[in-house]
Amino acid sequence: MNIIPFVKARRRGKVNVSAVTLAHGGGGKAMKDLIDDVFLAAFDEHSAEPLEDQARFELAMLQGYGDRLAFTTDSFVVDPLFFPGGDIGKLAVCGTVNDLAVGGAVPMFLSCAVIIEEGVPIDLLRKVARSMAQTAMQAGVRIATGDTKVVPRGACDKMFVTTSGVGTIPASVVLGVDKACVGDAVLVNGLLGDHGAAILCARGDMALETPIASDCACLHELIASILAAAPGTRFIRDATRGGIATVLNEIAEGSQVSIEIDEGVTPIREEVKAFCEILGLDPLYLANEGKIVVVVPPNETEAALAAMRSHPLGVDAAVVGRIGAEKENRVTMRTTLGGHRIVDMLVGEQLPRIC
Amino acid sequence: MNIIPFVKARRRGKVNVSAVTLAHGGGGKAMKDLIDDVFLAAFDEHSAEPLEDQARFELAMLQGYGDRLAFTTDSFVVDPLFFPGGDIGKLAVCGTVNDLAVGGAVPMFLSCAVIIEEGVPIDLLRKVARSMAQTAMQAGVRIATGDTKVVPRGACDKMFVTTSGVGTIPASVVLGVDKACVGDAVLVNGLLGDHGAAILCARGDMALETPIASDCACLHELIASILAAAPGTRFIRDATRGGIATVLNEIAEGSQVSIEIDEGVTPIREEVKAFCEILGLDPLYLANEGKIVVVVPPNETEAALAAMRSHPLGVDAAVVGRIGAEKENRVTMRTTLGGHRIVDMLVGEQLPRIC
Repeated sequence: MNIIPFVKARRRGKVNVSAVTLAHGGGGKAMKDLIDDVFLAAFDEHSAEPLEDQARFELAMLQGYGDRLAFTTDSFVVDPLFFPGGDIGKLAVCGTVNDLAVGGAVPMFLSCAVIIEEGVPIDLLRKVARSMAQTAMQAGVRIATGDTKVVPRGACDKMFVTTSGVGTIPASVVLGVDKACVGDAVLVNGLLGDHGAAILCARGDMALETPIASDCACLHELIASILAAAPGTRFIRDATRGGIATVLNEIAEGSQVSIEIDEGVTPIREEVKAFCEILGLDPLYLANEGKIVVVVPPNETEAALAAMRSHPLGVDAAVVGRIGAEKENRVTMRTTLGGHRIVDMLVGEQLPRIC
Repeated sequence: MNIIPFVKARRRGKVNVSAVTLAHGGGGKAMKDLIDDVFLAAFDEHSAEPLEDQARFELAMLQGYGDRLAFTTDSFVVDPLFFPGGDIGKLAVCGTVNDLAVGGAVPMFLSCAVIIEEGVPIDLLRKVARSMAQTAMQAGVRIATGDTKVVPRGACDKMFVTTSGVGTIPASVVLGVDKACVGDAVLVNGLLGDHGAAILCARGDMALETPIASDCACLHELIASILAAAPGTRFIRDATRGGIATVLNEIAEGSQVSIEIDEGVTPIREEVKAFCEILGLDPLYLANEGKIVVVVPPNETEAALAAMRSHPLGVDAAVVGRIGAEKENRVTMRTTLGGHRIVDMLVGEQLPRIC
């Protein structure tokens, strides 16, 4: 006779030390306590469900939102872990939400895999976990599965986070890096280079009276409003490592077009311009974590711009350039002095561990 | 007038240095060359598709395989990177394929996020990428999206890999850690502890004439044959960190049952037993990367065992124990001497960076 098991709420473990030990990555009681008391306590505090090896979702539910599944991943190795405007946890959620959203997907579920150095304070982990949970909740996504590894002191620098995400793309949305057409407009949603600048400040490389804050933000709602206003949108990409210069070159290559942007209308904060000059950096290559490049047909430019400017994350949106037909597939910038310069693919490193 | 762009096959970049530099993680040309020449060359050599921020799959295609999506993630920090029987790449594919398969899912797509230390030889990366590609191909899964980060020397120990996976679960398959019933049989598919032992050997902790090889393997086909032969299977979990002792305790807790296993029939290689004695380790807690614990109803035990034994990855399968009704939810082992000992949850670390 089978006795149907009575499933009580799972006993939650507690961490009773102040720093991470190797035991927390060993697969046993200590790891269970860490997962329960730090991660589940933040991500899923009321769940009584047993912990399975994978998260499971009804396909019928996903189909309510679209006809394609989007799947993406990103690792986050930012240094320092906490900076004005964000932290590695917020970054890890926003980055993956955005990588889904720029493809037109409704972001739905994330996974969270952390690699932690022995000795990291438990309180630091809690802060990161809570930041992730808060960001995910505000974005309407669920952190559904994860993994925890602990490495000996010196084998990694404090903490790395890798998030993957799944979302559903509505049938009407077809975006692609190969879809830009001659005559299309190139837009950005606001001031460029803030994230790279914020990291530089936070590393102490530049003392400013008022530190610049990272623009780290989830852009899925902004993107949804753009797509609603401009359904003919060709392509959207977030301008992270390598800045908008990199995205523009990727579009030029992917669509076999040329792009000309106008320095005079490209929105960059004065403080960012100033210390880029001092440090010999080009703001077009600075990382962003809340900025997108959007390519739209000419007849939808005004609608896209209006949609962006009426959203809190797009108030400084601007049309920065246009798609051209030159065979060399170059990106050029018309400078404020009236000349032209080539905006090439980034060669060499810009800043390590920027995201 | 819009000129429809002519999409040529994307120009593939080439790496022309021998070691990874920070530029390879910068988002620019060097990173594109690394992704093209090391990762895409292994994972997707013939693809002419443009690189989007996310992979996209038709939901209708997924529905052909089942009614639920399974989603999982795992980081791999194994040291050393290469060991008898495998490497970090093979491990990263098998581990995530298995985490999908133990939930009954057909594994379909993986993501691959790598964090690389500055200075790592390009050839080492190529070996890992090729190993991943070969393992994925043999398992019938596609590595569909990824990410590459490079950190300065000293910020991580050579290389970490995080894979996430999605798969589809057939409607008829409902497995859960809370589903074990009193009287059920507990099976394993073969010799336990080989992976943990292989890593110990590879670290030089024990000199053996014939090094033990990791049992690292993709188990999805074995699992499919078990589920076909024993559709009433309650639960399957791969016994990785913390060994089968950990999985048994998780079942006891999750299903609120007790478990008794029999030392005399628990399959462990003689060499593994021998050096566990010498090193003071308990093989029940040693990691595996190709072993599952399977809980089946009494009337399906023979069928499940026969299915396992007729598969190359289950030739040494055995019924190791049975589910009981004791309220303390303990796992106990009847020893070869006829006594009983408690097999508790792992307390403390066993071996760091075992997977």
